[in-house]
Amino acid sequence: MSSSTTKIVFTLSVLAATFVSNIWASDGAQVPLSDSESNPIKLGWMQGFPPPQDKLIMQPESDFFSFPKMRWTVCHIRELMPTKEVSRGIGAPVPMAYALDSGIDSVKFNPLGSNKPMTWKQSLSANYTDGMLVLHKGRIVYEAYSDCLNDTGKHAAMSMTKSLTGLLAEILVVEGRLNPTAKVATIIPELKDSAFGNATVRQVMDMTTSLKYSEDYADPNADIWVYSKAASPLPKQKGYKGPNGYFEYLQTLKQDDIKHGEAFGYKTVNSDALGWIISKVTGKDIASMLSERIWQKMGAEQDGYMTVDAKGIPFAGGGLSAGLRDLGRIGQLMLNSGEINGQRLFPKEVVENIQAGGDKNAFAKAGYKTLEGGSYHSMWWVMHNEHGAYAARGVHGQTIYVDPTAEMVIVRFSSFPSAANSKIDPTSLPAYQAVAKYLMQN
Amino acid sequence: MSSSTTKIVFTLSVLAATFVSNIWASDGAQVPLSDSESNPIKLGWMQGFPPPQDKLIMQPESDFFSFPKMRWTVCHIRELMPTKEVSRGIGAPVPMAYALDSGIDSVKFNPLGSNKPMTWKQSLSANYTDGMLVLHKGRIVYEAYSDCLNDTGKHAAMSMTKSLTGLLAEILVVEGRLNPTAKVATIIPELKDSAFGNATVRQVMDMTTSLKYSEDYADPNADIWVYSKAASPLPKQKGYKGPNGYFEYLQTLKQDDIKHGEAFGYKTVNSDALGWIISKVTGKDIASMLSERIWQKMGAEQDGYMTVDAKGIPFAGGGLSAGLRDLGRIGQLMLNSGEINGQRLFPKEVVENIQAGGDKNAFAKAGYKTLEGGSYHSMWWVMHNEHGAYAARGVHGQTIYVDPTAEMVIVRFSSFPSAANSKIDPTSLPAYQAVAKYLMQN
Repeated sequence: MSSSTTKIVFTLSVLAATFVSNIWASDGAQVPLSDSESNPIKLGWMQGFPPPQDKLIMQPESDFFSFPKMRWTVCHIRELMPTKEVSRGIGAPVPMAYALDSGIDSVKFNPLGSNKPMTWKQSLSANYTDGMLVLHKGRIVYEAYSDCLNDTGKHAAMSMTKSLTGLLAEILVVEGRLNPTAKVATIIPELKDSAFGNATVRQVMDMTTSLKYSEDYADPNADIWVYSKAASPLPKQKGYKGPNGYFEYLQTLKQDDIKHGEAFGYKTVNSDALGWIISKVTGKDIASMLSERIWQKMGAEQDGYMTVDAKGIPFAGGGLSAGLRDLGRIGQLMLNSGEINGQRLFPKEVVENIQAGGDKNAFAKAGYKTLEGGSYHSMWWVMHNEHGAYAARGVHGQTIYVDPTAEMVIVRFSSFPSAANSKIDPTSLPAYQAVAKYLMQN
Repeated sequence: MSSSTTKIVFTLSVLAATFVSNIWASDGAQVPLSDSESNPIKLGWMQGFPPPQDKLIMQPESDFFSFPKMRWTVCHIRELMPTKEVSRGIGAPVPMAYALDSGIDSVKFNPLGSNKPMTWKQSLSANYTDGMLVLHKGRIVYEAYSDCLNDTGKHAAMSMTKSLTGLLAEILVVEGRLNPTAKVATIIPELKDSAFGNATVRQVMDMTTSLKYSEDYADPNADIWVYSKAASPLPKQKGYKGPNGYFEYLQTLKQDDIKHGEAFGYKTVNSDALGWIISKVTGKDIASMLSERIWQKMGAEQDGYMTVDAKGIPFAGGGLSAGLRDLGRIGQLMLNSGEINGQRLFPKEVVENIQAGGDKNAFAKAGYKTLEGGSYHSMWWVMHNEHGAYAARGVHGQTIYVDPTAEMVIVRFSSFPSAANSKIDPTSLPAYQAVAKYLMQN
């Protein structure tokens, strides 16, 4: 590297670091360990026989999902919780084609709200990236693993799981097996007296149900804690009287003051309800459905898996772990409107419906600053940008980003210290757009 | 079917049923549901969304591993407990060749202690068989699945896990990385003050260590219960002061009155100690070692997995679940002295050492009626019969049975109501020998 190049790279690194510090400073929060400082292998988590006491990562979740421990945990969910397999079957995987492009690393972009350029490569560590895959015209042009992940490993997909649940539902809708205008109570009588009972399937799919449900983590009585206790696969404590499992919890939810369909509200319980709907319609759990309809048919190279509640019900709202390239196959399947490896897995209308997006006005009410003008439809985030991009997204930076115009798919696994994607979007969304432009020019 | 054939089959069925009833009656125990009556799919375990209360199978283990529930559980261990993957990697599986022989079903044999013949097919249900595979000269001549298992499913291997742990240790011995005459304390200083400290690696491998350790399930203070609590992956109850995990538990074990090396005593803790030895020597846990040395190299079609304790340590004494044909590959690998699909995975001395067997006198002291004249070596059961057969065995009827003379491998997954293989041996060991003879004549 020439000294001038070194200088530029150094300067950019400092700028990137400053930018990241500013994000945290604006929060009043303590600046966390950097990507490199929090590398789980360097920190020695779970290494040794046995690991020393201060290197153990164990139950409960409040410990194993705290930063920086969660940088190990995102690759090891199944070692901490019961899970159900998403089987790829037993045939040979279909390898993906490669056309690696080393130029991507130096693609520059301005982070949102900044006029100081950052390179693609810098953005990876700014975003605590564990795995990054870029597909262009169906071929892998960029692939990188770091921290806990490698190419035979799996990583928590978090709320990207929702988009796969939404995809299954949309397939059933297009196949005529699920009526989106039906009231939920007609499919799940057990939800008749809950908020979901008089909502439509479509309102559940688009998260425009009206629900009294608080995810205020600072409030010890917030619904999220009742939900967490219900969802835990661990045996309930003696004397516990609350709901056990996703399905019992959903029955307790009440409607909020507004009507269904008026506003988008990002609430995971909608995905659990949709998972239940799919199971009632098909007689199969979500993990089995994902296996049958997607994993066994897309040439997957690894099984996926889903966490389950104490009754064995897979977590349709966030339980999936999978390999990076397998999520790449899913992105490619979406980009190709339901086809992969010359096989059609579902009608093209499924993708057309998702890509068309949902109610922008309902979405605007939720006030997502980094996603202005967007919508949420069938549990996919639709950008409504000039490339018609849409995405599966999960906390701590997970994404499958599909750009139909650039014929590009990006999959990112990461373990950003904060759950909020609004903090990772400034250094990721413009990076995706810059790489899309770069690929279109080549 | 002709009426005379029907009559014979019916008569034989009645004889088989009588034989099975007699086994239970001799015990004074209640005759359990038959294979067909206890079919987990028929019984409806875990079916429905959600499953009705009386069809749920959940923690704790005393519930999920009780008969007949355990007939569902043996195929679903990972849905109840945290597990670690035994990865097959991401390459294409190597399919196994077929030469199915429908004549096997009617091969007859006399159960041990009986002069009333039974057919092979009858023995399958007499033994509550979930999966049965017979390989002859490397080709599948017989394959059957029932109850909870199918050819893309996995089943608990129970103590067959020990034989794989023993195989790994024997590989390290032959490779010169593990000294069988070394005292355990020189490898695991943490075990210095335990019974294992002054035992040799070989004594651990052959379970001739002298240990104060009771597996009397009727005694609430028996060591097995302390061990179970230590091994549980669930968070410990408040105020729990006992050992946490396999490694802490092993440190508490004291030596019995006799010397090490004098008598065989089938105690699972030896396998856990051997797992620890392997991890200290290689720096890798048992699941990773099984993946690296066996699963990734034998053309496996499914990943396996192992249960773990609360610290993520895989259960070397019984934690494996795997596919039927993948255990067939392991049997074939043994039969071929370390080669499979034209690849050598380990030196032939490994199998020669195991096959040679251990100390017959030490074994005789344990009084195994159905295995008289046998021995236990490197955690394999060596028959010392005229065919030189040896086996991996697990409670409730699991086996990999290797017959070098007949060039035959049998793998059985089952969920026999009683844990004791002494009850399943009478209708399985002579069946294996009869099929071996049949195959040699064809």
